[in-house]
Amino acid sequence: MNFKSDNESPAHAAVLQALLDANEGRATAYAEDDWSERLNQVFSERFETDCQVLPIATGTAANSISLAAVCPPWGGVLCHQAAHIQNDEGGAPEFYTDGAKLVTLPGQDGKLSADALAAAVDGAGAHGVHNVKPSVVSITQATECGTSYSIKEVQAIAEVCQSRQLPLQMDGARFANAVAWLGCTPADITWKSGVDLLSFGATKNGAVTAEAVVVFGHPDWLEALHRRRKRGGHLLSKMRYVSAQLLAMLDNDLWLVLAAEANARAASLAEGIHQSKHFSIHWPVQANEVFMQGEPAKLQWLKDHGASFHLWPGHSDLSRLVCSWSTTDEEVDAFLQLLQRAR
Amino acid sequence: MNFKSDNESPAHAAVLQALLDANEGRATAYAEDDWSERLNQVFSERFETDCQVLPIATGTAANSISLAAVCPPWGGVLCHQAAHIQNDEGGAPEFYTDGAKLVTLPGQDGKLSADALAAAVDGAGAHGVHNVKPSVVSITQATECGTSYSIKEVQAIAEVCQSRQLPLQMDGARFANAVAWLGCTPADITWKSGVDLLSFGATKNGAVTAEAVVVFGHPDWLEALHRRRKRGGHLLSKMRYVSAQLLAMLDNDLWLVLAAEANARAASLAEGIHQSKHFSIHWPVQANEVFMQGEPAKLQWLKDHGASFHLWPGHSDLSRLVCSWSTTDEEVDAFLQLLQRAR
Amino acid sequence: MNFKSDNESPAHAAVLQALLDANEGRATAYAEDDWSERLNQVFSERFETDCQVLPIATGTAANSISLAAVCPPWGGVLCHQAAHIQNDEGGAPEFYTDGAKLVTLPGQDGKLSADALAAAVDGAGAHGVHNVKPSVVSITQATECGTSYSIKEVQAIAEVCQSRQLPLQMDGARFANAVAWLGCTPADITWKSGVDLLSFGATKNGAVTAEAVVVFGHPDWLEALHRRRKRGGHLLSKMRYVSAQLLAMLDNDLWLVLAAEANARAASLAEGIHQSKHFSIHWPVQANEVFMQGEPAKLQWLKDHGASFHLWPGHSDLSRLVCSWSTTDEEVDAFLQLLQRAR
Amino acid sequence: MNFKSDNESPAHAAVLQALLDANEGRATAYAEDDWSERLNQVFSERFETDCQVLPIATGTAANSISLAAVCPPWGGVLCHQAAHIQNDEGGAPEFYTDGAKLVTLPGQDGKLSADALAAAVDGAGAHGVHNVKPSVVSITQATECGTSYSIKEVQAIAEVCQSRQLPLQMDGARFANAVAWLGCTPADITWKSGVDLLSFGATKNGAVTAEAVVVFGHPDWLEALHRRRKRGGHLLSKMRYVSAQLLAMLDNDLWLVLAAEANARAASLAEGIHQSKHFSIHWPVQANEVFMQGEPAKLQWLKDHGASFHLWPGHSDLSRLVCSWSTTDEEVDAFLQLLQRAR
Repeated sequence: MNFKSDNESPAHAAVLQALLDANEGRATAYAEDDWSERLNQVFSERFETDCQVLPIATGTAANSISLAAVCPPWGGVLCHQAAHIQNDEGGAPEFYTDGAKLVTLPGQDGKLSADALAAAVDGAGAHGVHNVKPSVVSITQATECGTSYSIKEVQAIAEVCQSRQLPLQMDGARFANAVAWLGCTPADITWKSGVDLLSFGATKNGAVTAEAVVVFGHPDWLEALHRRRKRGGHLLSKMRYVSAQLLAMLDNDLWLVLAAEANARAASLAEGIHQSKHFSIHWPVQANEVFMQGEPAKLQWLKDHGASFHLWPGHSDLSRLVCSWSTTDEEVDAFLQLLQRAR
Repeated sequence: MNFKSDNESPAHAAVLQALLDANEGRATAYAEDDWSERLNQVFSERFETDCQVLPIATGTAANSISLAAVCPPWGGVLCHQAAHIQNDEGGAPEFYTDGAKLVTLPGQDGKLSADALAAAVDGAGAHGVHNVKPSVVSITQATECGTSYSIKEVQAIAEVCQSRQLPLQMDGARFANAVAWLGCTPADITWKSGVDLLSFGATKNGAVTAEAVVVFGHPDWLEALHRRRKRGGHLLSKMRYVSAQLLAMLDNDLWLVLAAEANARAASLAEGIHQSKHFSIHWPVQANEVFMQGEPAKLQWLKDHGASFHLWPGHSDLSRLVCSWSTTDEEVDAFLQLLQRAR
Repeated sequence: MNFKSDNESPAHAAVLQALLDANEGRATAYAEDDWSERLNQVFSERFETDCQVLPIATGTAANSISLAAVCPPWGGVLCHQAAHIQNDEGGAPEFYTDGAKLVTLPGQDGKLSADALAAAVDGAGAHGVHNVKPSVVSITQATECGTSYSIKEVQAIAEVCQSRQLPLQMDGARFANAVAWLGCTPADITWKSGVDLLSFGATKNGAVTAEAVVVFGHPDWLEALHRRRKRGGHLLSKMRYVSAQLLAMLDNDLWLVLAAEANARAASLAEGIHQSKHFSIHWPVQANEVFMQGEPAKLQWLKDHGASFHLWPGHSDLSRLVCSWSTTDEEVDAFLQLLQRAR
Repeated sequence: MNFKSDNESPAHAAVLQALLDANEGRATAYAEDDWSERLNQVFSERFETDCQVLPIATGTAANSISLAAVCPPWGGVLCHQAAHIQNDEGGAPEFYTDGAKLVTLPGQDGKLSADALAAAVDGAGAHGVHNVKPSVVSITQATECGTSYSIKEVQAIAEVCQSRQLPLQMDGARFANAVAWLGCTPADITWKSGVDLLSFGATKNGAVTAEAVVVFGHPDWLEALHRRRKRGGHLLSKMRYVSAQLLAMLDNDLWLVLAAEANARAASLAEGIHQSKHFSIHWPVQANEVFMQGEPAKLQWLKDHGASFHLWPGHSDLSRLVCSWSTTDEEVDAFLQLLQRAR
């Protein structure tokens, strides 16, 4: 009953097979191999538009490099106060942007609201060079709270961005889970809704280590992205092995199949928690994460009886349960039975 | 007949098997898994001293993070003018050090000389805050010129460093090739000779993507190393897959077996070139790289007839031929036969 | 009736005379002149302890260089959400620290509370390298809200800092005003209360342009301070002209005389506002700034009738009135008479 | 007989008078005062073209901020190996550019040659993201060797720059001395010859502390310049006092009058040295600096007998003698008499 993180899951067999398949013969180094060069086409087909894809090993790097490509050092990155880039990346966005400021906003269910965003942008730069300049907006899909922005919500944010000439970046570490839950196309929730840059996550979703920066339009951003990826030490010499994972994920929409599995487990968990006596659901479950509230002693009791999960930072009565593609119905059932016995 | 780069070689079967083996069940994320936690012990045994090991995906990151841990932003990194950190990492060392300056020195066969180093250090910082402060020395083993520093040469450099309180970092992208060629222990050519920090390379030598920062002593450097690895986006969530590769490499000294194979191919190449009519060896062959001199037209003829290799930057008559663990005797023979026919 | 900013005031005659006096003959460049070299002694006497003084041209530079000397790039600077370093320095602290994060806290009357600070520090770094590391605390004296920390308040904050090994930096752009208002010694409110680093401001208080970083103890911080001052382009070649201003300010405590003048004007303003019909005092007046609340239309009426002042960012009904050493009783009286007529 | 540096000279009386004159009443802060706002017009008239002027306190800041406005972090700044930005600014250019690399070139008499520059640019970026990208060229006028680029020499360099889309920046710490020596207009040697950005130095030439970034064309660079000036802590709140100095300098071409005085002293020194028995001139004297060669013992003898000057770094037999506007004929004569007695 390990619900600590989807990062703890193994890789899917198809991804490993892709690694083995990619291991034939020599390949040009530094992302000039056949696998890497196929990414643009494969992603463009799946996203129904021309897009540019930079494979990369971690989500932190994907986010930071993306933000740095569009935000000057004197800029501000507007994001939710619970954002991963703000709380969990050890200052990587500040590092890659050479010192930009993350301007954080509150917002219900882990989401930025378009209105609050508009007010913040309009107020933030009022004193010219004395203030940091609002320069890019970053949203997380699915959010850190396990919720997913609807198409309408993304569109409303994008309108705020466009009217103020701000790029919109999407941290998609759990993008697959959001798309699977929304039931929309990846195009619908990204470029068709106004997203300019996507960190496409595959690692949590069944890869060994594979993420991608996906750029919709904006050929003028590519130099900075490529230069900063190299400069960050993220241009792997044997990039074929990362790209092969991404190709395997897109093949037959494995990425959505695996995400749907994880989401289904989370939905089952949520249903069981909802029916339990001592525990309740804190945020709507709209992806693969379940935030379960309960008395600290009861949460501890669960841990003492074999359930693994994290507490939400700063909260002794709020737990985070994450399902992955490898979470089984048996694990969910065992956990729900444990809930019944909790005292 | 592809001698372009050892980075183009596939991964060795044992490394891939290690990946498959590591794919069982869940593992704690962010380098707190069993594989990663075994690295300190396994490297300490092989290096015959307590050492701390940080697995990392690229050599550029390993070098840059190491240098940043010991060099302040106002510092200077002394290195050979042909060093990879100076010429081939897209400014990553400057990025990670927040703007330190690489102070480059000439030196025969791609090696720093202890005397020139001493003179440079003593002269470089003479005007206090107006100058950058010499702060760390970086040597490459094997060098960019395919030569290897002898134990005595490293010791002489280390003496210069120690008498001036400068850490000594070794870029070991081809460390295995140097150790195999020298026939010494890894301890002999590192900490026993005064090296403080080693970028241990495995990628070129048969891994998928796996490098390590190895720290000899200096527990006070660890915080900066760990913080900067995270901050650079290089703390992989599923680090087990990198660490498993490193363990596979050290198991039964596979790293030395593979490096010796590559070196043997290079030696054969060199022998054949030496006996050829139109081509000559430029730098002593002391690892897995061969620098072959010849008329530009003849080098082009070789390319036109199926041989792949790079020209050395800025030289139209100097080619670099790199052998890897996967280079076969047949490839070498085919190339040498081509040499005979060159006109 | 110009109450826009003490930055708009001219320099005091004694400061200009000091400039003229310093203009005799040649002087060693780069702060090795006689004036600069006397600073340590003069400040040490006035602060009743050995201290090191770095003259510098701006308060933004003084703050940023101080913070950078004690905060690593992966660190967090804890400060009040209204702090100048957070809102008004264009990202200079992030620039000088190579990307540290400003962690802001609310707090009554523009002051950090010791309890809130302790909680924030203890919570901020809980996830190790994934979080930025709380590394230094910065307080502003007098605050952006025109209040002054009492000795007890500084001591309580310093205790939180000391028990967590965090340096305490004081932004003293209006330090003179606070000391004059508190009626304590400069020693009492700085090193005796646990302050490690002071940005001593003289520009707003009657200098042409002169600030100083004052370090209490901590000789190990000096290299970073000196290197970063140079690296920021703040080691003036003709530093004698800055140092001479500082010496003039300390001579016969001119700094306190001028600050007391400004404070007295602010107190008169506050008294008059308090007795007015339409306006009220928002924050306690404990230095040279008065925050006056009133209906937006009435504030506009004042402006239309010749009063100059700024509105507080984000508030249409809150005005900031700043007095300087050059503010006259006549200006105050004229303003208070205008208030009576406001409608 | 102090020939150590023009930085050691006092300020000219007209500059001090301008400070006194500027000290009347209040003035809007942060370079929005009348003096600062007149700079564009006054410089535009003198340079015979529309230009934008940012006053700033130091030459190091002027150079670094200029370079940072046009050079990305992954860029290279091409300059002479003797350049001040390379050797004497403590890494400030690297700091402001967020880690760009200074690519240094040799060149006779302290000057870049157009041919060597073209070759260096064309070779430097051949490997794409693996190399830093040549991004800006910086020349020093007058040079560190006391020579001045002719109009033809600047034009030749500018042609190399323009054909490769590289901005050309001029470090004009001693720009006045060069213009006075060349006898050309400031327009001739800057924008008319292809210079895009000028660091206009006044401090060495008789100001208290006053420099300026002068931009010819390129309105798109202004945001970065203004933002980086603020972010570096170089937007003085009481900027009127810097701007007033610049205005005083341009008034009746005081800048050229003072520079011509300094140059004349240097010419006299050179003439006398040329006629001396034991000493010789090393580089052509084309501004206010004289490089005098002589046996180390003889140079020491001069110092022992009251002459102050610096040795050129790394050379025991090469001295640098700098004249300023305040150097008198008597000092020159006394020195030349000493030369006669040297043994």
